[in-house]
Amino acid sequence: MSAQIIAIDAMGGDFGPRSIVEASIACLSATPSLHLTLVGQTSLLEELVSGLAAIDRARLRIVDASEVIGMDERPSQALRGKPDSSMRVALELVRDGKAQACVSAGNTGALMALSRLVLKTLPGIDRPAMVAAIPTRQGYCQLLDLGANVDCSADHLYQFAVMGSVAAQALGVRRPRVALLNIGTEDIKGNQQVKLAASLLKNARGLNYVGFIEGDGLYRGEADVVVCDGFVGNILLKSSEGLATMIGERLEALFKAGLLARVAGALARPLLRRLQSDLAPARHNGASFLGLQGIVVKSHGSAGVQGLQSAIQRALIEIQENLPQRLHGRLEDLLP
Amino acid sequence: MSAQIIAIDAMGGDFGPRSIVEASIACLSATPSLHLTLVGQTSLLEELVSGLAAIDRARLRIVDASEVIGMDERPSQALRGKPDSSMRVALELVRDGKAQACVSAGNTGALMALSRLVLKTLPGIDRPAMVAAIPTRQGYCQLLDLGANVDCSADHLYQFAVMGSVAAQALGVRRPRVALLNIGTEDIKGNQQVKLAASLLKNARGLNYVGFIEGDGLYRGEADVVVCDGFVGNILLKSSEGLATMIGERLEALFKAGLLARVAGALARPLLRRLQSDLAPARHNGASFLGLQGIVVKSHGSAGVQGLQSAIQRALIEIQENLPQRLHGRLEDLLP
Repeated sequence: MSAQIIAIDAMGGDFGPRSIVEASIACLSATPSLHLTLVGQTSLLEELVSGLAAIDRARLRIVDASEVIGMDERPSQALRGKPDSSMRVALELVRDGKAQACVSAGNTGALMALSRLVLKTLPGIDRPAMVAAIPTRQGYCQLLDLGANVDCSADHLYQFAVMGSVAAQALGVRRPRVALLNIGTEDIKGNQQVKLAASLLKNARGLNYVGFIEGDGLYRGEADVVVCDGFVGNILLKSSEGLATMIGERLEALFKAGLLARVAGALARPLLRRLQSDLAPARHNGASFLGLQGIVVKSHGSAGVQGLQSAIQRALIEIQENLPQRLHGRLEDLLP
Repeated sequence: MSAQIIAIDAMGGDFGPRSIVEASIACLSATPSLHLTLVGQTSLLEELVSGLAAIDRARLRIVDASEVIGMDERPSQALRGKPDSSMRVALELVRDGKAQACVSAGNTGALMALSRLVLKTLPGIDRPAMVAAIPTRQGYCQLLDLGANVDCSADHLYQFAVMGSVAAQALGVRRPRVALLNIGTEDIKGNQQVKLAASLLKNARGLNYVGFIEGDGLYRGEADVVVCDGFVGNILLKSSEGLATMIGERLEALFKAGLLARVAGALARPLLRRLQSDLAPARHNGASFLGLQGIVVKSHGSAGVQGLQSAIQRALIEIQENLPQRLHGRLEDLLP
């Protein structure tokens, strides 16, 4: 296996550069073929990595970027006002072939806007989509879009379906079942965009379209790829995170109510921890931007070390599977 | 407390008349002031209630309706083709003052269409909304719309906010915090309808509007009323149900993996049961139709006896609180 080089936006995210450097070091130890380029304020990053062993340092470069994009900044500000932001410089490394992927835990809207500007979309794709793996009863499904595109036409949903299918294949699903998220499974259900997208998907050659899926069907694992607009996808993802957290807290509370419950709790706690980490998809897996001429993975803002590691892992798989090129090939066959 | 009369669509739902009659009997026993009118095929219903004690039978009437609306029938068919359906006759009893509320576990779309036709909306309300109580870290929030209105304008969202606020007050919340569901809490986030609805709500007198809320904020209990269009609300509700079910199953599986886990499971199981029933909102609580000149509560199609009991309970509260009249009064003050 040849070396992979990933550019890390070292300044983004809720926890700052320290946790990003920590996660980077851990990933370098775990993957001997991995090289990382940390992008950000050199003096700060040099200080943070100074304690590292020589073998790690050899696979860790630092590239200077003087500006930082804030988590609440408008995408338009990030586009116009900050030519030397860590996020932008990291993306430019991908554009210029100096890195094979960019990972950032920073401002999602800015990352999407800058990715489109710097890397451009693939031919036939109007808008990139954000996709993440959601745990289901059967394993995982790829849910997209997760918030990059608030209003979507039927054509956009169709493009998301094609991209999601190719991504699921790259992740090892042989013939991904692709479904459209809707409020019922009958043909008459849903809004105009969804109905129109369904008729496009029914006629798509080489795509395993299985029809409408409802919110509960997603968690039953009835599809490998679930397509919706970014408004719906973001709300589904965040409400699921909120519900999983609430259930975890209620379990903790139940296991404190009385002596017997405490005993049960002491026995059950390690099991519950495992369950909870399984159930925080966005926190623990990276969300990938699909449809760009390059690989960009967004790590959850409050993900911490483990989240960034998962995002780097997803970027590694996409590099190995050459995802943008595979997408490009399939788009030519599948898009109308 | 004076008597309450509720008309029950005895033919709707996934489990058929038997479970509806069972639930009705249980409710009569629990609430001495309650009278129920079962609407459906008389001979069948007479047979099902024939084993009842005399005291229950005195508070149980049967009204004949020869037709049944199927769970998959189109609302338009239900409107045109079946003048003597159990659902329609039950709604007509409310319209004619012979019952104070209608409860049905039948076809949701048909129930909404027939409710509008038979009962009419309140002045100032374009479309009724479907609302249910969702468990949160702080208690419950009223989420609406849950699927009755797929596409909503800003005006519709505004009307839902007003109706949800009044409903929450009727259920005992003194000054309900009303929020708009969105994919971020900053002003720039969201689609046009949501942004426009926000500006309407900011200027609404007497409404405790607290701004945008995200999916995780809902479960953190940051609002008492959460407003969205029916597409988003339905998907949030069903995906939450699906996730809660999946977590329950995973817990069961964890508690079977090994001896220690089995011991923990035996101790934990009663606690988990309680948790799971807390977390199946739509299954265990009725969804109420707001904005009609009459009270209509939808019980979940697969809810069984317990679900119908909860729906009847919600109808009872709405009767006691005189919800349609309260709504009518507040709408005159609040709508622009």
